Amino acid sequence: MPADSPSTARTSLSAPLPKPGSQSALREQNQQRVIAALMSGGPQTQAELSRQTGLSTATVSNIVKVMAATGIVSTAPTTSSGRRALSVILNDNGQVAAGIDIGRRHLRVVLASPNYRVLQEASVALPLGHSAVDGLTAASDLLDSLLDNGGIRRRALLGAGIGIPGPIDRRTGTVVQGAILPEWVGINIHETFSERLRVPVFIDNDANLGALAQVTWGPHSAVENLMFMKVGSGIGAGLVLNGSLYYGNVGVTGELGHTTINEQGVICRCGNRGCLETVASTSTMIELLSRGSNETVDTQRIIDWVLAGDTAALRVIDDAGVAIGRALAHMANLINPETIVIGGPLTSLGEILLEPVRRGLARHAVPIIGDTTSVCMSSLGDRAEALGAAAVVLAQQGLAPALASSA
Amino acid sequence: MPADSPSTARTSLSAPLPKPGSQSALREQNQQRVIAALMSGGPQTQAELSRQTGLSTATVSNIVKVMAATGIVSTAPTTSSGRRALSVILNDNGQVAAGIDIGRRHLRVVLASPNYRVLQEASVALPLGHSAVDGLTAASDLLDSLLDNGGIRRRALLGAGIGIPGPIDRRTGTVVQGAILPEWVGINIHETFSERLRVPVFIDNDANLGALAQVTWGPHSAVENLMFMKVGSGIGAGLVLNGSLYYGNVGVTGELGHTTINEQGVICRCGNRGCLETVASTSTMIELLSRGSNETVDTQRIIDWVLAGDTAALRVIDDAGVAIGRALAHMANLINPETIVIGGPLTSLGEILLEPVRRGLARHAVPIIGDTTSVCMSSLGDRAEALGAAAVVLAQQGLAPALASSA
Repeated sequence: MPADSPSTARTSLSAPLPKPGSQSALREQNQQRVIAALMSGGPQTQAELSRQTGLSTATVSNIVKVMAATGIVSTAPTTSSGRRALSVILNDNGQVAAGIDIGRRHLRVVLASPNYRVLQEASVALPLGHSAVDGLTAASDLLDSLLDNGGIRRRALLGAGIGIPGPIDRRTGTVVQGAILPEWVGINIHETFSERLRVPVFIDNDANLGALAQVTWGPHSAVENLMFMKVGSGIGAGLVLNGSLYYGNVGVTGELGHTTINEQGVICRCGNRGCLETVASTSTMIELLSRGSNETVDTQRIIDWVLAGDTAALRVIDDAGVAIGRALAHMANLINPETIVIGGPLTSLGEILLEPVRRGLARHAVPIIGDTTSVCMSSLGDRAEALGAAAVVLAQQGLAPALASSA
Repeated sequence: MPADSPSTARTSLSAPLPKPGSQSALREQNQQRVIAALMSGGPQTQAELSRQTGLSTATVSNIVKVMAATGIVSTAPTTSSGRRALSVILNDNGQVAAGIDIGRRHLRVVLASPNYRVLQEASVALPLGHSAVDGLTAASDLLDSLLDNGGIRRRALLGAGIGIPGPIDRRTGTVVQGAILPEWVGINIHETFSERLRVPVFIDNDANLGALAQVTWGPHSAVENLMFMKVGSGIGAGLVLNGSLYYGNVGVTGELGHTTINEQGVICRCGNRGCLETVASTSTMIELLSRGSNETVDTQRIIDWVLAGDTAALRVIDDAGVAIGRALAHMANLINPETIVIGGPLTSLGEILLEPVRRGLARHAVPIIGDTTSVCMSSLGDRAEALGAAAVVLAQQGLAPALASSA
């Protein structure tokens, strides 16, 4: 599909993937194998591709023909073992995928090439309570300025992945009531963004994209079952199960910020009491630590205090960590992930937050789960969501992350 | 693979399925489509099979050739629209799959035909604390007597699925320490049963098999994401996610009996405090209701009391139900299932137990999850696990449950 035609904007929430096990899924998988071989091994003959991928020479020849016709690869005559052959070269074409991460107070855009290199990247602050239209305009403007900076034509844009900090009802394509972005509730984000950006658009929850980033750009590409938990003003998780992003029945998964921690605790924005968010979100930390302070407290201030050894701040982090660990234990008891990755603005605290999380997990998980579940901080920092958003676009192009790198 | 040869007993814990998307997975999927068409439509020509399945005539012809060679189908000359054709007939062959469910106090064996009809079925009581060897001997004896009753030769046995009420570490094939069957801990069940039964053996956790039964024999065959929760002396769940049984990292999933309900509650057998099992298992109910009673209380007695309107028994069920609902809410917030099915010895309580479970779920789930998750009792009663065990064997033979029925 040409990316430069406005009429090609996809109308689905996320473009449908071929049915697993179908002929087209197999063809796409085989194409990904060939692309991966070209990405890792550089230009090579069809015979070499056949050896590297384990596919028959006839299959490789067919795939190369299709990819050459769509401009993904070029071919050039060469010789191999003294015989005439065709060298297959992966085209760059200057094509790019955009990854857009819209938060309550921030916006980040990355531009990535088909071989998973970050070409351009920038983030800006957004005013708290910005409208959907303002957020969209800011995203569109930042995208345009990154394209300009990189000297990239707009028609080279393959599509845009967009992460939203709220659960998305996949039946309607709208943000669910009660989400962290009340200004966005009920708006059909896909339609709105498609009209504005005029490229294929893929919307997803930010924690889902963070999870995807871990297994594409991050160091966890071999992990089949991974939970990515974002701790910020809200707390939510994205799940990679059996190697794929998991969406459940209506698309609202990973809502572990609303696990009851104190049955008689304070009222949560979801309407329940004593949810994990009421004891471990950064908003709660700010509220707790503002009480004894004349200064304006924000997340960065809390991080500074913790790193400086402030007792109250350390205690707030410790209590939050144990509560997070307890919620994670119950989730791990259910889905037995190999790895839990924690993301969000507190990742720079490292072991100071991880230690109480692991303590809470070990205390509340059944022993074999506690012993076999690893917990670590996201090495992608606050870039995970935008990188995951770009990965969605590339995956839709059949471009597998063989050599993904966030460098 | 011939089922009558002792040397063919599989050595894997559960036989490996072909990699999704591979040529062999596709072949198997296509074969299942043809079998499903034959099961629903009866004997028919290859042209008819091609129309019904959407597969090309060449593909159907290849599949029929392979299945005829392995004895799954026979072919016979016929005419179609006045032309000579080949009628394809699904063989019954008198082959059977055994499903064995071993509990703390019971044993159930079913024999099922390749078209998912239950041919023979029986259950017996086992003494509490029976050894693994005693359980195995009882299972083997009951299996033999069912084969005798049905006039089925032992060589017609395709294999045996075996459900165990404890988590299984799939890395070692052993029951995990702390399981409900302490007498079985550390024994390699697969090896032990394979040696004894001398057919391919497939071991799984009983809640997993109960979940599988819901989507094969039960009324939930269209459900992609289902949680089966067994409430008995222990509490555990099996998960069907994206249409398949989900195993996680080491095979220990659905341990929601150990969700903390009371942080300072009584000590649980897992070593934690106040787990769901300490407030909602039948063992806890028996303990609570024994206090005021001179009679020996068991699960059936509790059910009788509840149905007769006994206030204390009703209160115990209500409290248990709300606690179960709370744990289910947290799980549903995470994996957003379409349906939660409750099984185990209390299913006959129906709405009396379901009502407080739904109340607890609605109270603790985020609203969209509470609104879209259905909760019901297993219509398979205490047969679910054994039926699921037989389904595992049939699935391994490539026999899809197109017309599965527990009747």
